[in-house]
Amino acid sequence: MSATAKPLGRRAGESGTREAILRAARERFAAHGYDAATIRAIAADADVDPALVHHFYGTKERLFVEALRFPAVPSELLSRVTSARRSGLGEAIVRTVLDVWSSEATRAQALALIRSAITNERAARMLREFVTGTILSVLATAAADEDAELRASLVASQIIGLAIARYAVAVEPLASASDDEVVARVAPTLQRYLTGSLPPR
Amino acid sequence: MSATAKPLGRRAGESGTREAILRAARERFAAHGYDAATIRAIAADADVDPALVHHFYGTKERLFVEALRFPAVPSELLSRVTSARRSGLGEAIVRTVLDVWSSEATRAQALALIRSAITNERAARMLREFVTGTILSVLATAAADEDAELRASLVASQIIGLAIARYAVAVEPLASASDDEVVARVAPTLQRYLTGSLPPR
Repeated sequence: MSATAKPLGRRAGESGTREAILRAARERFAAHGYDAATIRAIAADADVDPALVHHFYGTKERLFVEALRFPAVPSELLSRVTSARRSGLGEAIVRTVLDVWSSEATRAQALALIRSAITNERAARMLREFVTGTILSVLATAAADEDAELRASLVASQIIGLAIARYAVAVEPLASASDDEVVARVAPTLQRYLTGSLPPR
Repeated sequence: MSATAKPLGRRAGESGTREAILRAARERFAAHGYDAATIRAIAADADVDPALVHHFYGTKERLFVEALRFPAVPSELLSRVTSARRSGLGEAIVRTVLDVWSSEATRAQALALIRSAITNERAARMLREFVTGTILSVLATAAADEDAELRASLVASQIIGLAIARYAVAVEPLASASDDEVVARVAPTLQRYLTGSLPPR
């Protein structure tokens, strides 16, 4: 770490600084999208020198990828969900997603990814990969059929919409409904998308 | 219209110019969100002098409201949907929404509103009012119960998520599925949200 790139203020060492930068990046990307968020502004939010951000993460693109990576979420989601019985998959997914989003940081991360994905092709690709990778691997344990990818993308559409309506736009009374209430309403939707019989074509 | 505020280039009179400004505004708000979109940039996109935008619409805030107003949509949606039988409400809503979004302009408008609503409180309020106003008035003709507002917000969550997954992020194969396919999969979701029996509490 060069002398000019020292974090300003007190911070619990390098990992604390890295985490502060990632948190600031998530918030900036969430609020402004990829294109409008600058390294300079992210560094200011994290109370560090911009050079330190470059030192740790290189380019804005790499910072974006790191900030919006879902590190613990997929494996946690996968293990919780893959242990559910087939008829309980919808419920396991909604409950896991709501639990994950009960953390402000994870919620900001999800919203940053969704918002950036609306207009930025790299973010869109990350979101698509997350959707197809994670949800498809859940499906592989359940009812994988020739229709698995459409099923997965329909599940994603409801989860994305739930994130936006409940947390970002705060449509009431969905925004203040209890997790149990949301699970009771939304789980059957995911269950049908995942394992419901195909409509006649 | 002042001499300095004349539209540049050929345009079919004032209404054509106004429409070009609204179209440019929708695209800017969709791509950058409310805060980052400027009158200057919108004017440049519409090929007019910024003074003309101010002349027609006053402030950016008023331009935003005008650009993201859903003029024909709600009444069209309402009449199509309210004439559906109760058990066909889910299908009528999805089909109407997809038909409306088959126009590039309306789709840009919807995405601009959703994207801006994620971070801008005024846009969020517009979206909430649209959701509660329009969907609740549909519900009033169907199964209005004490639960009507939660039902409406759940319908909104799936429609918002469908807009983003299918059009903005282009999650495949949902993005290229036919309208009929999407109706067949999503209509039962909306139908259950609207008229399904309440889960036990």
